[in-house]
Amino acid sequence: MAVSSSSSSALVLPSIASRTGISPSLPSLRFPRRTRQISLCSSSSPTPMEEEPLQAEESRSKFTDFPHVSPAHRDLMAELVSSVETRLRPDLHPCTLPPDVQFYQNPNGSALAALHVRKGLPSSPIDFIIGSWIHGSKLPPGGVDLNITTLYTYLRPSTDAPNFLIEFIQTSPLSLVLILDLPPRKDLVMHPDYLKVFYEDTQLDRHRERLMLLPEVRPYYSRSLYVRASFSPSSILVSIEANSVDRMEDIVRDHVSPVAKEMLEIWLELCACAERGEVGVDESRELARRDRVFRNKGFEIDLESSYPRLFGQEVANRVLRVLRDVILNA
Amino acid sequence: MAVSSSSSSALVLPSIASRTGISPSLPSLRFPRRTRQISLCSSSSPTPMEEEPLQAEESRSKFTDFPHVSPAHRDLMAELVSSVETRLRPDLHPCTLPPDVQFYQNPNGSALAALHVRKGLPSSPIDFIIGSWIHGSKLPPGGVDLNITTLYTYLRPSTDAPNFLIEFIQTSPLSLVLILDLPPRKDLVMHPDYLKVFYEDTQLDRHRERLMLLPEVRPYYSRSLYVRASFSPSSILVSIEANSVDRMEDIVRDHVSPVAKEMLEIWLELCACAERGEVGVDESRELARRDRVFRNKGFEIDLESSYPRLFGQEVANRVLRVLRDVILNA
Repeated sequence: MAVSSSSSSALVLPSIASRTGISPSLPSLRFPRRTRQISLCSSSSPTPMEEEPLQAEESRSKFTDFPHVSPAHRDLMAELVSSVETRLRPDLHPCTLPPDVQFYQNPNGSALAALHVRKGLPSSPIDFIIGSWIHGSKLPPGGVDLNITTLYTYLRPSTDAPNFLIEFIQTSPLSLVLILDLPPRKDLVMHPDYLKVFYEDTQLDRHRERLMLLPEVRPYYSRSLYVRASFSPSSILVSIEANSVDRMEDIVRDHVSPVAKEMLEIWLELCACAERGEVGVDESRELARRDRVFRNKGFEIDLESSYPRLFGQEVANRVLRVLRDVILNA
Repeated sequence: MAVSSSSSSALVLPSIASRTGISPSLPSLRFPRRTRQISLCSSSSPTPMEEEPLQAEESRSKFTDFPHVSPAHRDLMAELVSSVETRLRPDLHPCTLPPDVQFYQNPNGSALAALHVRKGLPSSPIDFIIGSWIHGSKLPPGGVDLNITTLYTYLRPSTDAPNFLIEFIQTSPLSLVLILDLPPRKDLVMHPDYLKVFYEDTQLDRHRERLMLLPEVRPYYSRSLYVRASFSPSSILVSIEANSVDRMEDIVRDHVSPVAKEMLEIWLELCACAERGEVGVDESRELARRDRVFRNKGFEIDLESSYPRLFGQEVANRVLRVLRDVILNA
């Protein structure tokens, strides 16, 4: 297949979507309590979804359709995106990607993608959030059907708090890789207090332990050692092999979904919205340096190597130019 | 049991030994080619084993007896220690631990240990090597028989190369935890070139992949997130559950042993003995800071919490005082 499930591993979350996707329901309708939730991240009142510019709302709803994945998978991703956008709304600009980067495909239409990026306001600790889905149909070699859905949030070096990442890589209805983590932004060996605050006191590891109890769940190892090194010690990197589509739906709905929502909630409360106090100038400079190395390396591993193969050079160039600007020059 | 197999995880390698151990054969007899091997780490000629002081040799042979573990396990540990001591001999002082720290036990004799430490000469990149074995018999709760064998090598901040660690934790003849790694001494996210030199170019991950092919082998997760964070992304942290003693012997002899020897060989060639050029003053200071944090935290997690429970406060105090001096003030 063009994008290997074991080499891809969303450091910076690639994403492709289809213009053909039909939106069965908006996340704002599906999760009405969430969309009205009060933001903790800003002192300003939350802006109701209805007041957003129509274009931004349309773009968002197309992205959150996730039209090529199963209902449980789609519901979870849509709810996570909705939670993030609702809680962080006062901190975020609308998505201003060009239309042909919000949705794009390869020349023969076998690979499709949606991309959704919202940058943080200058006053916000949020640098940007980025969500995507990629759908590949009968990709060579082997005619694999591929679905990758991702949500990644990046914080600014004004805070040292971890980022948030969820990614599903699916190469058949019975096989799923899940990557779910709060990737640390400091060297944990050098900073045991940081490990304690964000990973030990939050008991993040119990979520991994909970999923590992399922007989269908196995540890997953990214081929890239750099990618592995970027995760926290409580990261969830698992492959799930179910013996039926129904069982896979059960696992995603009853086990993966609550874990992902709880971990996102921890991130929202403790990392994105907490009053941890700004870090000092030297520490912020060091965080910015580490973030820059990580993003450059992630961009190289995740996107530059796979996008031309998947979408052809012309489309890849167009999308990567925009992504480079967002990720590396944010 | 007094030392939990899932909480213990040799950052700094505890070790206990028995004065009752009978040495079936010396490693120098069992592996004659190794003990005569030419050291690559010093321009001085290797000192033949026979020329070492008798007391040091006696101490070493008692430690390398590993009297309470299976033949394959004992042979492997003895051969690893022999390889390290032979190759690094011109760099190492003899073991000068007090006799009651080289061998000690708890008041009722149910927990025994041997400890072996050799500090590096001032001109050497080796800070110290430390080896140990602990044997516990019918330990509460549950009457567990425990065996822990460890070899850990620490480098000085004059080089940034990784350390080497192997530890076996055995709580029954059919159950074994193996920890085998070259723990990095830099933040790998910040230093992808370091990751490339020591982990990618050496293809270290193939050893983990090889062991994971065995149906008896499963990933192992230390309870301590700090300990997990200290390992490399190609670390081997596995539990092995065999259905017979013979099968466990086969696994250790035919699979674990070659992997451990190859990884030690990589460490000796690339880390302990290579001419990588000394690091600069600022980098060395940063390495020393990181080493210090890591050793302090490891000492606290690995030793301070488990030694009093296993050996009683008086023996623990005696041994930990010496270990603290070696590990934290080396």
